[in-house]
Amino acid sequence: MVDIATRVWNHKWKIDPIVRSLIDTDFYKLLMCQSVFRNRPDTQVTFSLINRTKSVPLAKLIDEGELREQLDHVRSLSLTRGESTWLRGNTFYGKRQMFRPDFMEWFENLRLPDYHLERVGDQYQLTFEGSWPEVMLWEIPALSVLMELRSRAVLDQMKKFELQVLYARAMTKLWEKIENLRDIDNLRIADFGTRRRHSYLWQDWAVQAMGEGLGEKFVGTSNCLIAKNRDLEAIGTNAHELPMVYAALAESDEELAQAPYQVLADWHEEHDGNLRIILPDTYGTNGFLDRAPKWLESWTGIRIDSGDPAAGAETAIDWWTSRGEDPTKKLVIFSDGLDVDKIRQLQQQFEGRVLTSFGWGTLLTNDFRGLVPGDTLAPFSLVCKAVSANGQSTVKLSDNPNKAMGPADQIDRYKRVFDVGAQTKQDVVV
Amino acid sequence: MVDIATRVWNHKWKIDPIVRSLIDTDFYKLLMCQSVFRNRPDTQVTFSLINRTKSVPLAKLIDEGELREQLDHVRSLSLTRGESTWLRGNTFYGKRQMFRPDFMEWFENLRLPDYHLERVGDQYQLTFEGSWPEVMLWEIPALSVLMELRSRAVLDQMKKFELQVLYARAMTKLWEKIENLRDIDNLRIADFGTRRRHSYLWQDWAVQAMGEGLGEKFVGTSNCLIAKNRDLEAIGTNAHELPMVYAALAESDEELAQAPYQVLADWHEEHDGNLRIILPDTYGTNGFLDRAPKWLESWTGIRIDSGDPAAGAETAIDWWTSRGEDPTKKLVIFSDGLDVDKIRQLQQQFEGRVLTSFGWGTLLTNDFRGLVPGDTLAPFSLVCKAVSANGQSTVKLSDNPNKAMGPADQIDRYKRVFDVGAQTKQDVVV
Repeated sequence: MVDIATRVWNHKWKIDPIVRSLIDTDFYKLLMCQSVFRNRPDTQVTFSLINRTKSVPLAKLIDEGELREQLDHVRSLSLTRGESTWLRGNTFYGKRQMFRPDFMEWFENLRLPDYHLERVGDQYQLTFEGSWPEVMLWEIPALSVLMELRSRAVLDQMKKFELQVLYARAMTKLWEKIENLRDIDNLRIADFGTRRRHSYLWQDWAVQAMGEGLGEKFVGTSNCLIAKNRDLEAIGTNAHELPMVYAALAESDEELAQAPYQVLADWHEEHDGNLRIILPDTYGTNGFLDRAPKWLESWTGIRIDSGDPAAGAETAIDWWTSRGEDPTKKLVIFSDGLDVDKIRQLQQQFEGRVLTSFGWGTLLTNDFRGLVPGDTLAPFSLVCKAVSANGQSTVKLSDNPNKAMGPADQIDRYKRVFDVGAQTKQDVVV
Repeated sequence: MVDIATRVWNHKWKIDPIVRSLIDTDFYKLLMCQSVFRNRPDTQVTFSLINRTKSVPLAKLIDEGELREQLDHVRSLSLTRGESTWLRGNTFYGKRQMFRPDFMEWFENLRLPDYHLERVGDQYQLTFEGSWPEVMLWEIPALSVLMELRSRAVLDQMKKFELQVLYARAMTKLWEKIENLRDIDNLRIADFGTRRRHSYLWQDWAVQAMGEGLGEKFVGTSNCLIAKNRDLEAIGTNAHELPMVYAALAESDEELAQAPYQVLADWHEEHDGNLRIILPDTYGTNGFLDRAPKWLESWTGIRIDSGDPAAGAETAIDWWTSRGEDPTKKLVIFSDGLDVDKIRQLQQQFEGRVLTSFGWGTLLTNDFRGLVPGDTLAPFSLVCKAVSANGQSTVKLSDNPNKAMGPADQIDRYKRVFDVGAQTKQDVVV
């Protein structure tokens, strides 16, 4: 039986919306948003979309009108009652609420601010300007929309059984990865793939497959909507955005040098346990740890998001040891460019020496490499970053010069202030 | 939206019936049935299920009660108005009707006769006794039911995403075959896989995928129900059953020697064009062709169903040439143990020398080899054959001693009467 009502309902939509909920976003965006809302609510910030993979001509693939319709749809969204209830129910180890009533009230009344879209050559210039807590929530939906519209542009050319076989192949590929991961003892892995997913439905499938295939080794997803719908734990802490904006707001080199610690001091006050994770690489991991204040030693763990991950974990272990902490009680979260072999290798290298956890991103939710002729569905490196704060350009160095961002003179200044020495270049796959 | 009515409807069924239509069968069974109905309607025949793959313990895998429910369901079926209309509409090249009014009237009133089922060790003994035109229609549904119940026994142990990935793998595997076949010039291929299909839904998917993937190279299916539902041509002519029963009815060695030609003489009267296909191997191809009457020379083609297929086609070409016929106007249909490599190889060898066509069976509709641990979904060699007629055992020799059937003394008698010399054994894969 065809369900006539379903079919008619589907055809009533003028578009097939990609982002259908304000919580179809990463959990850490909301945690950071609350921190920003409390500590720096009036900062004026510009976020900008940057396609690092110039060979993917987004403006040729994606119709501007369709892109505007999708972005306009995101602006029409507001928090639903059930979403609000779910957010309010999130607690720290069952004790107090993660999201405070003043933040929730503000969020319940939020609509995302306007965007600025312009075609420049074969790429789109897409920017968001406004108060930091509002504008920052554009990052994930903007990425999801662009990623999925690019997928649709390719899928539009395919016939019915070709499509079915495409997804059959993608499922087979992902399931083989999951079967492979199943053998790794003491694995703890989460989905971190919202921002560069092939599509929402595919991420939702991938998360469910991880759940069935890995059992307790699969610890949750960074995507709040999927966590809510699939009864999973939402995972995440904080990101480069915080130190980047705090740093841009610094009024002297001394303030700049302190900015990354100020971020974590604000965080320390508000959060506990698994949310106390250091992301040390924004301006070079080594210098950050060398100069770290004593109170950071007691934090739960470190997330390694650039550079050679094994080297980063060794650095973290050495740092804890040098500060008299027991590394076997500490957590290292790997979240950069992961796939099965690297996960297995890192787990083998660090098992027993430190607690490990993996945030698996693009190659979980968008590994369509090799599935269509010309590889036109392969993931690509799209980011949406805070590029300025109160008129000052932001800078990111990271532990990989290929991931550095910002004006050249500011990069030089930051390297000097943060005493960043020689760095090894690493290819950015996705 | 869940369609509540659909869900409730599905749960009203006491069983999930495997065979839901009397025309979920091979087209040639109906063509042969009509011939039998006209020429030998009163013959008492016994059909028997034979599992050649003893390593598949059907009676351990399949619950006897479930098997009985499925067989009883088949007995409850009768021709629907639409099925009858579709059969009546089948014509010879648009001229006269393939199925005559008297046959259709009989068929419209038919219910399949009773069955006899007994467990013997780890296998089932399943037999059908009665008048030939009725009993013969059990063959395909009996095979389909057993094959699919075996699939279900394995699938019952699998979880939701495992199931989805299983079918994803099967689709990927089949689609790769189809992409491979797409390059073969002048290919003409049909689905002959009803009898050993993994399941009805899988065969239906495979047929549709062949249609989209191969375009005009895919010429149809032997399955009447799928042909009707998917708007395809139903394909098929005649099978070993006819000479086997005619031979068993022979009252002397002289009559026995003539029996295979008598079958085709009856067929010649009734049919035309693509339905005039010789199946020469029942009692050895070489002898059959050597002694063939002159009127057989004008027939459209030959189907090769046992022995080395290339050798069989060469024999056919030599025979036509020796009888003054032009082989390039004749059709060779390959239908035994085909898969992509063999199809490609045969097409290359015979292209331009003879018209070719392929009836792809088990490895189209049931190639689940290698998809589950222990290979418990691999196809196996199940047949349902006429084992006696009016109390006399039937005999089949074929061009492969591994496919021979019948009592040893009768096999020796048939070998003598049909002057069958040394034969080469070929493995029977499926």
